[in-house]
Amino acid sequence: MSIQSSIDVEFTSVNNVKSRQITIIGGRGRMGQLFAQKLLAIGHKVNVLGNQDWDFAEQLLSQAELVIVSVPIEHTVDVIKRAAKYLSPTTALCDITSIKTQPTQAMLTHHQGPVMGLHPMFGPSVQSFSGQKIVVCPGRHDESFQWLLDFLQNQGGELITCTPEEHDQMMVFVQATQHFYRLSLGVFLAEANIDLERSLLMSSPSYRQEIEILKRLFKQNPNLCVDIILATEERCQVINDLAETYQRLAQLVARKDREGLIKEFEEHQAFFQQEDNSLLPATYTFTENKDTGFNRFH
Amino acid sequence: MSIQSSIDVEFTSVNNVKSRQITIIGGRGRMGQLFAQKLLAIGHKVNVLGNQDWDFAEQLLSQAELVIVSVPIEHTVDVIKRAAKYLSPTTALCDITSIKTQPTQAMLTHHQGPVMGLHPMFGPSVQSFSGQKIVVCPGRHDESFQWLLDFLQNQGGELITCTPEEHDQMMVFVQATQHFYRLSLGVFLAEANIDLERSLLMSSPSYRQEIEILKRLFKQNPNLCVDIILATEERCQVINDLAETYQRLAQLVARKDREGLIKEFEEHQAFFQQEDNSLLPATYTFTENKDTGFNRFH
Repeated sequence: MSIQSSIDVEFTSVNNVKSRQITIIGGRGRMGQLFAQKLLAIGHKVNVLGNQDWDFAEQLLSQAELVIVSVPIEHTVDVIKRAAKYLSPTTALCDITSIKTQPTQAMLTHHQGPVMGLHPMFGPSVQSFSGQKIVVCPGRHDESFQWLLDFLQNQGGELITCTPEEHDQMMVFVQATQHFYRLSLGVFLAEANIDLERSLLMSSPSYRQEIEILKRLFKQNPNLCVDIILATEERCQVINDLAETYQRLAQLVARKDREGLIKEFEEHQAFFQQEDNSLLPATYTFTENKDTGFNRFH
Repeated sequence: MSIQSSIDVEFTSVNNVKSRQITIIGGRGRMGQLFAQKLLAIGHKVNVLGNQDWDFAEQLLSQAELVIVSVPIEHTVDVIKRAAKYLSPTTALCDITSIKTQPTQAMLTHHQGPVMGLHPMFGPSVQSFSGQKIVVCPGRHDESFQWLLDFLQNQGGELITCTPEEHDQMMVFVQATQHFYRLSLGVFLAEANIDLERSLLMSSPSYRQEIEILKRLFKQNPNLCVDIILATEERCQVINDLAETYQRLAQLVARKDREGLIKEFEEHQAFFQQEDNSLLPATYTFTENKDTGFNRFH
């Protein structure tokens, strides 16, 4: 169950990084593996606790400086509870699940040491963290995670700090409805059995982008996509609202209600014309936010 | 109504291009303007026939070597009929509307000279034709358009030849349903009144891409978007099918039918895994560890 790098020493001296003892729970999943590889590569000692390894939990968890929980959404809280009893009060505990309120709360409740919720806004197929966003929800004793946050930033990651509640509220729209409409769109295109290659040949750039995203989505584990869609009651409700919007506009199309559709377009045009530089990623740096806490944004 | 370049002679000698007499019907629209600028820039003489200029139609059309029809979809066939009677039998007549069957047929019926249907797969906001696709539907005497096709290719455009029927069939999916789902998604996000800037800050790359596309969509003229959605009966029917797919999957979400959603995902996974390497950006590899997904943890 150990995948310690055989070249720890060399890396440690090259990077002048203190080699830390890290355990990733769920480290055989693709995201867990990604983090294991990146942490190993700069000289840390990484152990993995998979589903079959709980007999070794004491050994794998009690000595760890950092424990990262990287398991499916629906198991995260249970795994946190189960793991917490093996942890030393000084162990830093974080999770990388895509919801944050319940996991962060569970970590604060069941572990008395340092706690932080993280959400990497990318999938396991990225080559590096460069240019990727990671949402950071501080929990307790943030300073114990400073080396981890520094590591993420040094790898090119961009940190965004917020409360677990703000994160979850935003992810309803950024993640859940997006996964839903894309899953539905993919099902629709597949059922229509269009000639995908030929359609790409004759397509606009935005269609090609969409198909690229659908190809990546449908390469993932279906559980991951469905977990993201169903994770909270609020997500299910908002997805229902989205489907109703589709239905409403489809009825305008069925009636060939040109004026009605133009009205829908015009009424919401201003929303997408807000002044906004955020599409230019280079303008954001968070290097100064080393002491990020709740109060920075509230 | 003439916007002939004052530097024709210079350009003509520089580019060694035969200066041709071109009239763009609808040349004051944004796409018409784009084509006028590009053609002027390499030394052609470009006249514009706008909606108010039909008193000068004889003068503007009878001497033209090439006439380009660039008017809204719903007016295209009427404008072709109206213009055709002024054309010389040697004038090359083409249109750049986003449906091709009826316009191409109308050009073949009402004009006895060279005919071609074109569909530039990009909007008027592009800086150049470089890397952009243009669908070409040959009609009659293709050789009269060779210089125009060469010009488009020399400007970096990629030509895809097909029948008007294949084009229209494909555009139901490549254009109409895409415009519909994006218009609906935009209306939904605007009605939810999310904090767009903040959501972009905390977002995945695919969400940012989607919002960029929505911003471009909602900057356009609403008529253009609604024209594309309502252009044919088939489009309206297929959009209805798409809305039904959304409704079907939303019902699974409302029932928290995890297995049902996973089944939808799995049944259509193969469709998006057809061989095609052209879509994989350099940053993504999918070669490793197909057998180490989250399910390892269960």
